[in-house]
Amino acid sequence: MIRRDFFKNGTLAVLGTSLFSPLSSAAAILSPTEEKAWGSAKNIIFMVSDGMSTGTLNMANLLLERKEGRESKWISLYRENKVVRSFMDTASADALVTDSAASSSAWGGGVRVNNGKINANADGSFNTPILQKFKNAGKKVGCVTTVPITHATPAGFCITNNSRGDQSEIALQYLPLQFDVMMGGGNQYFNPSKRKDKANVYAKFEEAGYQIVRTKAEMLKLNNKKPILGAFDDDALPFTVDHANDPALQDRVPTLAEMTVKAIELMKDNANGFVLQVEGGKVDWAAHSNDAPGLLYDQIAFDLAIEKAIAFAEADKNTLVIITTDHGNGNPGLFGDTDSNKKFDLLQNFKHSNDWILNSIKPGFSASSLIDMIAAAQGYTITNDEAKSLLVHYEKLDGGGIYNNRKLPFELFGQLQEKYTAIGWASMEHSADYVELAAYGPGSSLMKPFVRNTELHNLMLNATGTKI
Amino acid sequence: MIRRDFFKNGTLAVLGTSLFSPLSSAAAILSPTEEKAWGSAKNIIFMVSDGMSTGTLNMANLLLERKEGRESKWISLYRENKVVRSFMDTASADALVTDSAASSSAWGGGVRVNNGKINANADGSFNTPILQKFKNAGKKVGCVTTVPITHATPAGFCITNNSRGDQSEIALQYLPLQFDVMMGGGNQYFNPSKRKDKANVYAKFEEAGYQIVRTKAEMLKLNNKKPILGAFDDDALPFTVDHANDPALQDRVPTLAEMTVKAIELMKDNANGFVLQVEGGKVDWAAHSNDAPGLLYDQIAFDLAIEKAIAFAEADKNTLVIITTDHGNGNPGLFGDTDSNKKFDLLQNFKHSNDWILNSIKPGFSASSLIDMIAAAQGYTITNDEAKSLLVHYEKLDGGGIYNNRKLPFELFGQLQEKYTAIGWASMEHSADYVELAAYGPGSSLMKPFVRNTELHNLMLNATGTKI
Repeated sequence: MIRRDFFKNGTLAVLGTSLFSPLSSAAAILSPTEEKAWGSAKNIIFMVSDGMSTGTLNMANLLLERKEGRESKWISLYRENKVVRSFMDTASADALVTDSAASSSAWGGGVRVNNGKINANADGSFNTPILQKFKNAGKKVGCVTTVPITHATPAGFCITNNSRGDQSEIALQYLPLQFDVMMGGGNQYFNPSKRKDKANVYAKFEEAGYQIVRTKAEMLKLNNKKPILGAFDDDALPFTVDHANDPALQDRVPTLAEMTVKAIELMKDNANGFVLQVEGGKVDWAAHSNDAPGLLYDQIAFDLAIEKAIAFAEADKNTLVIITTDHGNGNPGLFGDTDSNKKFDLLQNFKHSNDWILNSIKPGFSASSLIDMIAAAQGYTITNDEAKSLLVHYEKLDGGGIYNNRKLPFELFGQLQEKYTAIGWASMEHSADYVELAAYGPGSSLMKPFVRNTELHNLMLNATGTKI
Repeated sequence: MIRRDFFKNGTLAVLGTSLFSPLSSAAAILSPTEEKAWGSAKNIIFMVSDGMSTGTLNMANLLLERKEGRESKWISLYRENKVVRSFMDTASADALVTDSAASSSAWGGGVRVNNGKINANADGSFNTPILQKFKNAGKKVGCVTTVPITHATPAGFCITNNSRGDQSEIALQYLPLQFDVMMGGGNQYFNPSKRKDKANVYAKFEEAGYQIVRTKAEMLKLNNKKPILGAFDDDALPFTVDHANDPALQDRVPTLAEMTVKAIELMKDNANGFVLQVEGGKVDWAAHSNDAPGLLYDQIAFDLAIEKAIAFAEADKNTLVIITTDHGNGNPGLFGDTDSNKKFDLLQNFKHSNDWILNSIKPGFSASSLIDMIAAAQGYTITNDEAKSLLVHYEKLDGGGIYNNRKLPFELFGQLQEKYTAIGWASMEHSADYVELAAYGPGSSLMKPFVRNTELHNLMLNATGTKI
């Protein structure tokens, strides 16, 4: 009840214009709290668990509490009263239910755009992405993600495009930016053997002065003398639950927390500070396929990245950390009654995602083979009828050995898994739910209790005192 | 980051014991903020939208914004920064997924009990319900609800019982309490013609000095000279969307907001203040039957009760208002993409709940009759196949004209309705989701950002300076 009055009634826009004036002028219309917050942060770490419904945050915390006897970092920040907590309206220009391109654009460009657009308005104009603004202001900037680095959420902070769809084009749009750290998946959009146009985009980046890394070991050796492009898998990185149970993957592919630590290390000594976006992108992909183990272990991996970011910010004291999601997805939950505890506890011993299982089924698989595989990978025994109901979907597939993911029976598997795990799903699509947002450190007092996604754009500029 | 430090590390229990000492002693271990908050509230209005998932709060707000051009009171309290906002862990003693009896007991008795129990511990002992404590401290106390007044949520504030199930017994447990206002549904548990034991419980209440009311008109005439028992329907009150489109129901049955206003009016002049529980109980019932119009219009009715409570509290300045839910239910959401806006907007013209439709289907109904009925009641035209898939469930029912609600095809109707409304459901059961909580007025600074449901018990005692 004490702060933020200034932001009422749309006066954020007024502040936006005042940024062209010196601080003293802006301060003249700021409340004492806002005045103190203005320009108080040198660095920003903006963390997005993509497609995280309330139940995702809740179940990841419950899983950690029951498996490891500790709460998630995100929940501990609430419990210890270390953050300003907010509720965010995620709608896009043309939909109550946003997609990731429009939602990242709302933060990245400060304007709501239509679904599918990246900082591109309906009238054909474009909004300048926030990392371009920060780069121009002398900050180091970057993105790390578990999905292709060319995907919608990083792209919304970096570039403008009338369509999120052409990631091969977005890869080329990154080339002239000279952003300091861009790491995730997406080899297929840079590698000449994977691109349709056969262009060697890696070579173009190297010619432009970038360091290229393709493995965790290469990443760990990076220095901060040249900008960085890292792509550790063709498309997205593996789900955490699969990665954690595959030594070869662990050896080759860094975790989100490892990428976050490295990115901070590479940018933290810049005199003008840095701005880093960290995306747990496969939380959204797991929700789209109603994959509970994929979802919860990737949410936990995101939480480990939060832990690293907060540890840095606590020591640094000049870093604003924003932790949120771009929209709900699937609205999963742990449902039922007293018997749900035991069912939920099965998740503690899952070794693989639903995605891993459905992609491991080969033509001609028998019901008993599938039952055994699921028992080994996830610790429960499905019935013969359930196995057959899954296998019937494989009869329809092309026998050539390459499956179209879109046709795999994710929905059916998620539904039959509920009997064993007590985790249910409302949809395989995004939701209009208002979402959780936490802000830590200098500038966090600028956060209102209920915000439109677009408000975070100016908040980041204001917190760092960045004049555009 | 400034307040609430005192409550860390379980020191709430210490404060609990210190309540037996005079304020000066308690204050010695309170932070300045807590010391100021201690005993600052004279009245409490504790408001429960039963079984409200995040999406329920979100969609009710979206429906109001698009239908009436105004936001919900609950969201406006966030947007205007008028409340302390918290996230609540709702688990019971034996389950991550609580039922309403255990969750109301957590608030009402301050101790987590097993699902199904009302302030009854596993060792056979009982916890004193908070309205008994407040009554003994000289406050007026009461409950209003849209479900039977004997149902779990009011019962958890009033009585102890090893089972929530026997509402006829709970009705008799209320008799000696002499609580000031107890109003809702539940005629069947008081009326001799409805009770199995044929006892005239109304007569017992009258003999004990109560005023009995059975209609809205009788309610409006009530005075505060004697305690009040009101039962406006046999079981729960009608869904708001049905009530609003039926003049006879509107004439007979008060809304939750009307009951709230009357209850406040009857208790507000008490020198020692009052404590009122307000429950939007049918939000939970709607979620259990995946009934989107039932859900959203009852959430809006709950919001109108919030409006009345806050209006009183704003004028009174001595009233703490707590607004929350006891657990998620069904985790519904508005899902999809740009076409979901138009689908969602259909809800604006719904005249009846799914419950009303499924209970209106008579034996021998044709598919075309059902299609017409749904078109008239909800504004969209289902297919012939969809009508037949619903009607097949009626073939199995007893033709005697009295349907067992449990057998009606609520789940199927909710599923096929999603095509028209874009509202999906993850379950017909409660969820373990952490839930929204807002606290307004004196004492609200005692609320931590993340709380266990049990913490609210001592918080209410502390906010009012009530020594037990």
